Amino acid sequence: MQFYRALSRLSRNAFARRPLLPPPPPPHRIPPPFTKVLGFSEFYDGGSSSNYGIRHQHHNSSPIVEERLDPFSLVADELLVLANRLRDMVVAEVPKLASAAEYFFKFGVEGKRFRPTILLLMANALNVPMPRSVSGIHDEGDSLSLELRTRQQCIAEITEMIHVASLLHDDVLDDADTRRGVGSLNFVMGNKLAVLAGDFLLSRACVALASLKNTEVVSLLATVVEHLVTGETMQMTTSSEQRVSMEYYMQKTYYKTASLISNSCKAIALLAGQTADVATLAFDYGKNLGLAFQLIDDVLDFTGTSASLGKGSLSDIRHGIVTAPILFAIEEFPQLRSVVDKGFEDPANVEIALDYLGKSRGIQRARELASKHANLAAAAIDSLPESDDEDVLRSRRALVDLTQRVIMRTK
Amino acid sequence: MQFYRALSRLSRNAFARRPLLPPPPPPHRIPPPFTKVLGFSEFYDGGSSSNYGIRHQHHNSSPIVEERLDPFSLVADELLVLANRLRDMVVAEVPKLASAAEYFFKFGVEGKRFRPTILLLMANALNVPMPRSVSGIHDEGDSLSLELRTRQQCIAEITEMIHVASLLHDDVLDDADTRRGVGSLNFVMGNKLAVLAGDFLLSRACVALASLKNTEVVSLLATVVEHLVTGETMQMTTSSEQRVSMEYYMQKTYYKTASLISNSCKAIALLAGQTADVATLAFDYGKNLGLAFQLIDDVLDFTGTSASLGKGSLSDIRHGIVTAPILFAIEEFPQLRSVVDKGFEDPANVEIALDYLGKSRGIQRARELASKHANLAAAAIDSLPESDDEDVLRSRRALVDLTQRVIMRTK
Repeated sequence: MQFYRALSRLSRNAFARRPLLPPPPPPHRIPPPFTKVLGFSEFYDGGSSSNYGIRHQHHNSSPIVEERLDPFSLVADELLVLANRLRDMVVAEVPKLASAAEYFFKFGVEGKRFRPTILLLMANALNVPMPRSVSGIHDEGDSLSLELRTRQQCIAEITEMIHVASLLHDDVLDDADTRRGVGSLNFVMGNKLAVLAGDFLLSRACVALASLKNTEVVSLLATVVEHLVTGETMQMTTSSEQRVSMEYYMQKTYYKTASLISNSCKAIALLAGQTADVATLAFDYGKNLGLAFQLIDDVLDFTGTSASLGKGSLSDIRHGIVTAPILFAIEEFPQLRSVVDKGFEDPANVEIALDYLGKSRGIQRARELASKHANLAAAAIDSLPESDDEDVLRSRRALVDLTQRVIMRTK
Repeated sequence: MQFYRALSRLSRNAFARRPLLPPPPPPHRIPPPFTKVLGFSEFYDGGSSSNYGIRHQHHNSSPIVEERLDPFSLVADELLVLANRLRDMVVAEVPKLASAAEYFFKFGVEGKRFRPTILLLMANALNVPMPRSVSGIHDEGDSLSLELRTRQQCIAEITEMIHVASLLHDDVLDDADTRRGVGSLNFVMGNKLAVLAGDFLLSRACVALASLKNTEVVSLLATVVEHLVTGETMQMTTSSEQRVSMEYYMQKTYYKTASLISNSCKAIALLAGQTADVATLAFDYGKNLGLAFQLIDDVLDFTGTSASLGKGSLSDIRHGIVTAPILFAIEEFPQLRSVVDKGFEDPANVEIALDYLGKSRGIQRARELASKHANLAAAAIDSLPESDDEDVLRSRRALVDLTQRVIMRTK
């Protein structure tokens, strides 16, 4: 759930660290045909991806120009098309329901770019150029290509709808009164409308899924909804044993954070008619990126931007949620277990746990585990069938670059 | 939403009025193969169905034996199979989630028989016997028949899951603290688990739908979820104009009550490979039965069992929900409109509205409209392609019989 909100911060952060970077295209820009992207090769250097042995050619661009790349802008124009279509899809016969469902799409502009970004990059990365010869066949290839792209965009839209639906229901669950800085829908319009708007988005997602006429993909994304629910329930109903189990934690993290992006990456591959092996690589990328992301999120909850312990929001531990750094610390200091068992309603107990955490390698080991998953994600991209298509290679490099951004971020 | 809970009362009522009727089979009874049903022909007389010109032969059974029929028992054994499978389907990796989802299936035994009953009767009513000749082909027909039946049962299960999910979410919405006489799940376990359990059931329904590998059916039932949400939202966000519009009321009633049963009836027909015309008849049956049911429900909210005004629970009007009897009364007494506009928080206003209603033909016209829809439902069954299969005809008579039970009920 936290995944994309923080990825949003990550992206803004990436901009902030690169003062030479031109601003992103204005939102009113007329999008070009969506298989075209911004003549991006001038700006991209392959960056950290070369560490992962991606089989690509480096460009002869200057270091300064190289510095200006941003994976998010690679599909920026296409994202505008998606955003508009998403709005069209949540139009309902009941204006109030539509406005409720649209609520997040209006306010969540920043937060909603990342699932679609990853999925469109994955679509590019797996693109098998249609055979082109003369006249008629050329057109047919274009038309097939266009149809596939539209279906893959649909996956990105469905993924976004499932995500927003789960946010809406989470807000009800948590009695949250803010979300991304604006009043949460349940606060503004009541729990009733928030539950209904979530259900409405899920049903629209399901109708859109059905329109793809691919039952394997329907099944994949239906399972994601189940995973989101399972993960949330696992978190709220842990036994004492489960709370200190790394296996339980990783399973919950997969359900809550990684399942949506991994299964939708896989769906992108399946729609493209890729082999089961390639679909599994796409899945592995999403899964490991999601896990790495959440592990870093859990570290930052302790360290914040300052990288020193106790400077984060400490929101997890204060809500009694035990994450990777503490779990690793327990392995070094088994006596921390009894502190955890007492719960964290008493702030003094939080302090004791932080003391143990500070003495342990918990933070470091959580970071190492995040790196391991980031590397696995990059390796999955590296294992894709070779391609000499420049667009394909560029998107693969962007996907690999994302794995490094995820673990390098400090907020 | 009210549809099946009241149908449940209707069935118990039907039992109460027939003291000679044997008790239903005990729940631990081992179900026979599900295409067999209780040797029911001995007990069934065709009843009121003959009024609708169903082309069937009457049985040579005595009037006393005829009196013992009950459409609900026609598929009783098969329902036990379904109930067990439903329980299997809501088993989750998280025990608490499974127990939450199972909550209604445990307590709601009575309440959950009716959608499946109608759907299994519809499956029988549309059954096209597989061609049977000797040896191999005989087996193949049986196996195809069995496969189709399993898929149709799956529709009944999915329908039930969607229904229970909507009950769970309605309970959150209404802050209801009881449901069917037992504490509602949100009261017992909190809103959080009720929302999650509803989402979980929806996702399981979606996974089960996907397994049917029929995208038209997926789309139909996804649309139902949307309709349930739309109907609920229409009810909670009416403008002054909409509140007194019969068209708005009927549309809302379709969404909230009739869409689920009509679209699942249609799904039963589509799975059987029936023509679009037959699928439309199945849809029309469900739609009109649902509308008739809700209209009578709205009447009974005013009259209760006594058939005299003001003896019902008056629950709708006290919640500010304006239903058919009042809408018809406004047509006769336009000055009632200003009473409605004032709302019904003041009990005195309820009394004034009841006075107008008593002077008007509102109750009678709502009953007439219900009868009209019940007759349309029966006519849809009557318009099905002719059949001389005794099982088919028996189920068609049971479906027609249901249309009369719905409008004759007094509670």
